[in-house]
Amino acid sequence: MGLSVRPTVLVSEVGPRDGLQNIQAILPLAVKQAWIAAEAAAGVREIEVGSFVSPKLLPQLADTAELVAFARQIPGLNVAVLVANRRGAEAAIAARVHKITIPLSVSETHSLRNVRRSHAEMLDEVRVIGALLRDLPPGERPVLEGGLSTAFGCTLEGPVPVERVARLGLALLQAGCDEIGLSDTAGYANPAQIKTVVRAVRAAVGEAALSSLHLHNTRGLGLANVLAGLDVGISTFDGSLCGLGGCPFAPGASGNVVTEDLVFMLESMGLDTGIDLARLLEVRRILRTALPQEPLHGFTADAGLPLHYADRGRRPA
Amino acid sequence: MGLSVRPTVLVSEVGPRDGLQNIQAILPLAVKQAWIAAEAAAGVREIEVGSFVSPKLLPQLADTAELVAFARQIPGLNVAVLVANRRGAEAAIAARVHKITIPLSVSETHSLRNVRRSHAEMLDEVRVIGALLRDLPPGERPVLEGGLSTAFGCTLEGPVPVERVARLGLALLQAGCDEIGLSDTAGYANPAQIKTVVRAVRAAVGEAALSSLHLHNTRGLGLANVLAGLDVGISTFDGSLCGLGGCPFAPGASGNVVTEDLVFMLESMGLDTGIDLARLLEVRRILRTALPQEPLHGFTADAGLPLHYADRGRRPA
Repeated sequence: MGLSVRPTVLVSEVGPRDGLQNIQAILPLAVKQAWIAAEAAAGVREIEVGSFVSPKLLPQLADTAELVAFARQIPGLNVAVLVANRRGAEAAIAARVHKITIPLSVSETHSLRNVRRSHAEMLDEVRVIGALLRDLPPGERPVLEGGLSTAFGCTLEGPVPVERVARLGLALLQAGCDEIGLSDTAGYANPAQIKTVVRAVRAAVGEAALSSLHLHNTRGLGLANVLAGLDVGISTFDGSLCGLGGCPFAPGASGNVVTEDLVFMLESMGLDTGIDLARLLEVRRILRTALPQEPLHGFTADAGLPLHYADRGRRPA
Repeated sequence: MGLSVRPTVLVSEVGPRDGLQNIQAILPLAVKQAWIAAEAAAGVREIEVGSFVSPKLLPQLADTAELVAFARQIPGLNVAVLVANRRGAEAAIAARVHKITIPLSVSETHSLRNVRRSHAEMLDEVRVIGALLRDLPPGERPVLEGGLSTAFGCTLEGPVPVERVARLGLALLQAGCDEIGLSDTAGYANPAQIKTVVRAVRAAVGEAALSSLHLHNTRGLGLANVLAGLDVGISTFDGSLCGLGGCPFAPGASGNVVTEDLVFMLESMGLDTGIDLARLLEVRRILRTALPQEPLHGFTADAGLPLHYADRGRRPA
């Protein structure tokens, strides 16, 4: 009797961008559309549908504009994309996305290797994009997120100083970002470090400006790191269906947190993701059919849902 | 300069028992000895080397007495075994083990299916074993741990009431156990539940009597559950090298927490396991050679250690 009010957590699906950019196969537009529609129907409220980059560099994501147009038709879905520079941001604005993420690698070595730009050059680019966005009418202005990649260490530089993460977070805000996200690009993070870095960045940028984590499961700590993030008030976590993805420019780093396992953990803990896990698990079929050569990850899919899982909260736990 | 005092955590290796009892292959005694010696040399301080059960039921563990005799020669190693009844306990005492674990399944359905005994019958058995141990001279008395299996849910019964876990924990202590451990036999636990159940059991049995968790990674939450256990003061965690093992009587439940990934998480967080992770990872070779058909799990082994991992604590994190 009565309404149960559970704390909500936003699970942001990045598979159509981060997953697909890291595999060889190119999914047809219709398959991507079916994937996005099925996840949205399962209750996923934010999806990074692609990236506005050169189709020569990432032919897998060449149809991002069409996908944005499609995804914007889905009621209630927040449509996000990644861009690497001003040109990408212009395309994202033209496509009328809800959210633009621009990455800045805390490891300058990684930044130079990945996008051939120094920190100063990337911050200049963000400033230009911030100015573009300020010129838009408020109702048509996408949110600009600065994504601090390699925020917990880098395969090229090793550990990165937490002071540098905080300083670059503040620099991104000052350059025009609305919010900051932290990415464990290399799968180096541990739960204690998650808390330390989140607290340090928040001390620099303010509580509200840091709300999301993008974690990899490279060394199996993905969900433990999510738990640490929850403990310090993070409320948005990226996941990739079937764990597709990684970072081709950070050798050895592979494997996003599996969206299905992430949802299983959060919902089991009594948190509200708004996602119907049984329906989400069925979306895997689309990838299994379309990507027969690709290994699909996920413990919950292999093991199945626990007995009486659907009755959780109404039975003793 | 100066001693760094890190909090210690005991990682208890259960692979030679829990891992091997769940695979078809029978490892030769010499291979098991090499495995145990290599883990001890890497710094592992407690190993469950086998189980005193009928060799007809588990031929894989028929050499447990010889293994105990071998393992007892290794300085500083705590030698543990599992027993299911009085007869097993007598064999364990004769072999001079340091620790005996007797499981009691919180799900009575699982108990009847697994060892054909009700809760009352199992508690009677524990009482008899407790009396046997009390007759020994204090210096020769093994520690008796009551292991509450299916403590977080059961594939046959579904959720189990936390009050029953607490009541059975107290009953085990009253029957003669020195301490209690909780097992997530079915891989049903979530981090919020870990905290709830640990607190409830401790309220019944006292703080000191519950110090260990045996967690499975069935749905990928193993390390997140360890983290929740750390948060409520648990200081001993079981792991299985290469994630060998599971429970053949709980269908769908498979996969212990991988010892290597567990050590990686704890050490990365600044906790002291006493284990040299690089050496521990090398122990995998013994299993890879001896069990060529068996899938070996572990993210850290696949990904390798992070750059400058050995310098952790001496560099910025």
